Amino acid sequence: MKEKILATSTELFGKRGFPETSIQDIVSMNDLTKGTFYYYFKNKEDVLVQIHEQFIESLLMQQQEIIQADLSAHDKLEAMVQMLIENIRTNANSAMVFFREMRHLSNEKTRDILPKRHQFQRNIASVIETGMLSGEFRSDLRADMLSFGVLGIANWSYFWYDPEGEVSEKELTHIFMEMIFKGIEEEKT
Amino acid sequence: MKEKILATSTELFGKRGFPETSIQDIVSMNDLTKGTFYYYFKNKEDVLVQIHEQFIESLLMQQQEIIQADLSAHDKLEAMVQMLIENIRTNANSAMVFFREMRHLSNEKTRDILPKRHQFQRNIASVIETGMLSGEFRSDLRADMLSFGVLGIANWSYFWYDPEGEVSEKELTHIFMEMIFKGIEEEKT
Repeated sequence: MKEKILATSTELFGKRGFPETSIQDIVSMNDLTKGTFYYYFKNKEDVLVQIHEQFIESLLMQQQEIIQADLSAHDKLEAMVQMLIENIRTNANSAMVFFREMRHLSNEKTRDILPKRHQFQRNIASVIETGMLSGEFRSDLRADMLSFGVLGIANWSYFWYDPEGEVSEKELTHIFMEMIFKGIEEEKT
Repeated sequence: MKEKILATSTELFGKRGFPETSIQDIVSMNDLTKGTFYYYFKNKEDVLVQIHEQFIESLLMQQQEIIQADLSAHDKLEAMVQMLIENIRTNANSAMVFFREMRHLSNEKTRDILPKRHQFQRNIASVIETGMLSGEFRSDLRADMLSFGVLGIANWSYFWYDPEGEVSEKELTHIFMEMIFKGIEEEKT
């Protein structure tokens, strides 16, 4: 039941926005009483907190699997971008809520979640640094700034990419990784 | 006066969000009467529409100047990224409102503004295509997808980049353009 309430709320917050969704909307859509809602959640913010936590923790867990895999820095970075793009299909609304409604969390709750967002970005920077040390990547650019560039490419996709469109997730990842790894300039030969 | 109301509203919508800001908040911050507000704007949505229009039209105008300049495709693309990053300093709140509050526009208003957002993206794709034709850029990757990647890098900066921090706008643009043009892989020699 809790998962069902979370799923419906994610859809409502994603489509209408957090302030525009009432607890009444959430219970109506689930054919529940408010009593059932309050059995699982303290209030509407509590739902938002749990959507944020589930989303970032799922991403961190998937990222952790990639980090621990026996892969080159190159392949880890590619796997992370691919993972983010594949998550659009299953988690578009969660991502919308995550990127857009964070400001509705209390300062206290933001203090819990923000470090996890930063951790995700720092893990990308750390893969890039490893690749610089191993000689896979050039070492004349700041890894932290590059990690924000890579995250920008992947996260921005949540705002425009349609997984049902003519470009598959695999092809999109390929194009992005070609740009990130080799760049778009024609090689001078 | 109209510009002042727009500036205050942009700040309020950016910091608190559109639904959380009332016309009363806007007039209080400007020491105005509601009568003065309604002399310039039909309602709160009208303010949001004008913020969106000013923001995207200013970007399109700056982009147009770059397109018309006597520059290579390479330099045009770099100038566009630099322009977007420089706009963070002056337009952070407008950008927040632009990226986040679009869903509060009526369908009719969205129909006016969406084509301008698309135009901005298509102009980037078109510079990339020109570079492919001139041999500056490799032509084995889709220019439209690349344009979304470049936009993602630049637009994402609005969510994390602090122009007062240790990395200057110029340095950030340099790092991003090195990745976009040459990639982060160590060249095999």
